Amino acid sequence: MKKLINNPEYVVEDMISGMIAAHPEYLRKSDAGNILVRKESPIKGKVALVSGGGSGHEPSHAGYVGKGMLDGAVAGAVFTSPTPDQVYEAIKEVDGGEGVLLVVKNYTGDIMNFDMAKDMADMDGIKVESVVVNDDVAVENSTYTAGRRGIAGTVFVHKIAGAKAEQGASLEEVKRVAEKVVANVRSMGMALSSCIVPAAGKANFTLAENEVEIGMGIHGEPGTHRGEIKTADEITEHLVTKILEDMPLGKGIEVAVMVNGLSGTPLMELYIANKKVSEILCEKGIKVHKTLVGEFMTSLEMAGFSVTILKLDDELKALLDEKADTPALKVY
Amino acid sequence: MKKLINNPEYVVEDMISGMIAAHPEYLRKSDAGNILVRKESPIKGKVALVSGGGSGHEPSHAGYVGKGMLDGAVAGAVFTSPTPDQVYEAIKEVDGGEGVLLVVKNYTGDIMNFDMAKDMADMDGIKVESVVVNDDVAVENSTYTAGRRGIAGTVFVHKIAGAKAEQGASLEEVKRVAEKVVANVRSMGMALSSCIVPAAGKANFTLAENEVEIGMGIHGEPGTHRGEIKTADEITEHLVTKILEDMPLGKGIEVAVMVNGLSGTPLMELYIANKKVSEILCEKGIKVHKTLVGEFMTSLEMAGFSVTILKLDDELKALLDEKADTPALKVY
Repeated sequence: MKKLINNPEYVVEDMISGMIAAHPEYLRKSDAGNILVRKESPIKGKVALVSGGGSGHEPSHAGYVGKGMLDGAVAGAVFTSPTPDQVYEAIKEVDGGEGVLLVVKNYTGDIMNFDMAKDMADMDGIKVESVVVNDDVAVENSTYTAGRRGIAGTVFVHKIAGAKAEQGASLEEVKRVAEKVVANVRSMGMALSSCIVPAAGKANFTLAENEVEIGMGIHGEPGTHRGEIKTADEITEHLVTKILEDMPLGKGIEVAVMVNGLSGTPLMELYIANKKVSEILCEKGIKVHKTLVGEFMTSLEMAGFSVTILKLDDELKALLDEKADTPALKVY
Repeated sequence: MKKLINNPEYVVEDMISGMIAAHPEYLRKSDAGNILVRKESPIKGKVALVSGGGSGHEPSHAGYVGKGMLDGAVAGAVFTSPTPDQVYEAIKEVDGGEGVLLVVKNYTGDIMNFDMAKDMADMDGIKVESVVVNDDVAVENSTYTAGRRGIAGTVFVHKIAGAKAEQGASLEEVKRVAEKVVANVRSMGMALSSCIVPAAGKANFTLAENEVEIGMGIHGEPGTHRGEIKTADEITEHLVTKILEDMPLGKGIEVAVMVNGLSGTPLMELYIANKKVSEILCEKGIKVHKTLVGEFMTSLEMAGFSVTILKLDDELKALLDEKADTPALKVY
């Protein structure tokens, strides 16, 4: 295992120290543990958003804590759900009196622990709602998931629900737009290589010299199939086709696109993939309103990428374009 | 070679198509070739900045084309200097009548070709000046370089000289602050793995299972030494120590820090490195005004990172904090 780390047991703590040192103008660490919140939390009169999950997906989720996105991010151990206590502490830390929306990726452990935290906060009289993101069209009922997995599309939920909350909307309204994003966002990914959880010390799957895995999850869960690597155009076309089979889009529809690197894939290759995404959408008369290319939801050092397509209406488009100021995503 | 590409001969063209598709609000492609310029170029009355070099270092340099940074970026083949003609065309495309500053990393091929382009533009009556960035403290007189290599510190030159140009300063003034950045910026990097130039199809160096290379260049040029991997704290301390030996900084000095991923290293590990950078600087009484953690000057899929420290004065600090709006760096 060749990693730039100290003790594998403290990678999350070390990372959080480095994040706070880098971004003191955005973030502070909760005294209650591995929870990062907006420096000015709690914000009176604003619905708060909390997300999180296992670590190893940086900048998800603490990189999105800031104006117009999240109020708090809970960091579990690498690829491990945060505890109910952690989520509960985050809720208490950010609640400004208008309630808290939990944005949860669809993994069984996350669902269970965020739900327990919600129940604990309910008993304190804090209004808490949650939405579950399940944007991965690749497979149903995967290793850690009943239904579909939540992957990079989650970042669009953070952005759009966060903008709604920043406008002063009620918890019900913020939840409504978050659910609208969930209903209209689809993703699918592929891997060129595996990754190593520091505490495990060995790869969680292996690929042969010329082999890739299509549709795998962001923790290396099995995808739809393996095969010899094809061209970027062929691979990208397969992913976009699968997404559009699941969510047919007619001519004139507007979308936002995210080409998300899993970490080991250079930006050059992500742009090469985006060339094909934009060509396919253009041929179909689908209008791309906004494109994000970069690393938004990673899988440790895994090489590979995912494509996310979000179908927009006027409301989602306006909220997507609202200002955001966070360490990992800035919109002005 | 497992890469997300189509024809290795067209990776730069494909990438540029994908960049234009992703960022039409910032960039347009010059008809003269692999040159990306600010959409609104030329901007009358503003000094223009042109940078560039071999491809494979994305988001350098086209990712920094936009308000408050570069006006044009010239993309050579992977790890290959752009031609004099390309640079000359970029100069003509962005000159708004106040002259053009070329920001060149210190590689023999780049120096020669940017100089020839300058001479060609001079004959057209365009005022052109250039600065050479040589921030890498690791080695002198490397594979492609007389003197020191130019690496990630170049991004601070783009940011600060770009801000000065945006304020309407003269070519002489923009050049002066660019040279001030060059005089006050130092970097050093290390690699955990090599990278493969697409057209070559094989790694340009190899490291054993537990081996790292300290001080290598962004094209895989030899560093100061190889050895078994140590902890993130030990590696980071070595890099920061080498930088501070070269540029001693007293108590109370303010700096900007960049912890730059070469591409294959996860953001989690870059933050772990930043923890140590900030601790060392804090112990020495050096004040960190701003920290950038992410991928700014990459080396294809190489795993590893570099640390850059920029010594600030009031002028550099103010220009660093000025607004910038580019695909890869936004400051508000």
